[in-house]
Amino acid sequence: MAAQMDPDAVAKAFVEHYYSTFDNNRIGLGGLYQEASMLTFEGQKIQGVQSIVAKLTSLPFQQCKHNISTVDCQPSGPASGMLVFVSGNLQLAGEEHALKFSQMFHLMPTPQGSFYVFNDIFRLNYA
Amino acid sequence: MAAQMDPDAVAKAFVEHYYSTFDNNRIGLGGLYQEASMLTFEGQKIQGVQSIVAKLTSLPFQQCKHNISTVDCQPSGPASGMLVFVSGNLQLAGEEHALKFSQMFHLMPTPQGSFYVFNDIFRLNYA
Repeated sequence: MAAQMDPDAVAKAFVEHYYSTFDNNRIGLGGLYQEASMLTFEGQKIQGVQSIVAKLTSLPFQQCKHNISTVDCQPSGPASGMLVFVSGNLQLAGEEHALKFSQMFHLMPTPQGSFYVFNDIFRLNYA
Repeated sequence: MAAQMDPDAVAKAFVEHYYSTFDNNRIGLGGLYQEASMLTFEGQKIQGVQSIVAKLTSLPFQQCKHNISTVDCQPSGPASGMLVFVSGNLQLAGEEHALKFSQMFHLMPTPQGSFYVFNDIFRLNYA
């Protein structure tokens, strides 16, 4: 993804790429994080590519499909980062009801003009 | 709020202060934003203290009570900012059912050692 694109377009492209990778090739998410990256998953704090990928690939479900409801984005400050805020639902294979979730990402630019995930916070929204 | 406190304690104190002010003295929220601050409220982008306060004080309800379910926080990078991610529900006066919401704040330090809200994204989580 090129950093000079329209922010809303970058956010939308990132979100589509992230959840498509999650649903189809979860281990590939490792390419979106770096060693300083942080994930807070349902309150559990995890740092670093390997730990984040280990967490995401060990979740107690294999097949899943994320459906996105909303994507909001804002520039995060002078370092050219971008905040992306997502709401949607998560359909697990064999489950009748989808789970609602909210997630935020803080994307930071790479020297190559792309982005990586510096901050990631995920919460299920229980009814 | 002192910037040198434990981040989780700062986040919790900020969240309590923010929603208490929202519920009891909404116009007082202006003190938490600056001119560069951004609010995205249900997809509507607003910037600057006056515009943000005008939006928050013109919402189509007067009395409300925020109940917080979860607060997550992470440092946002080298500029000593902090990301705060909140889920909860919003009870409006005279309404039987509370509205679920998610909100994220990016707090940035002030020269006085406190914080202001640089980014704010709010979404209702419809069932």
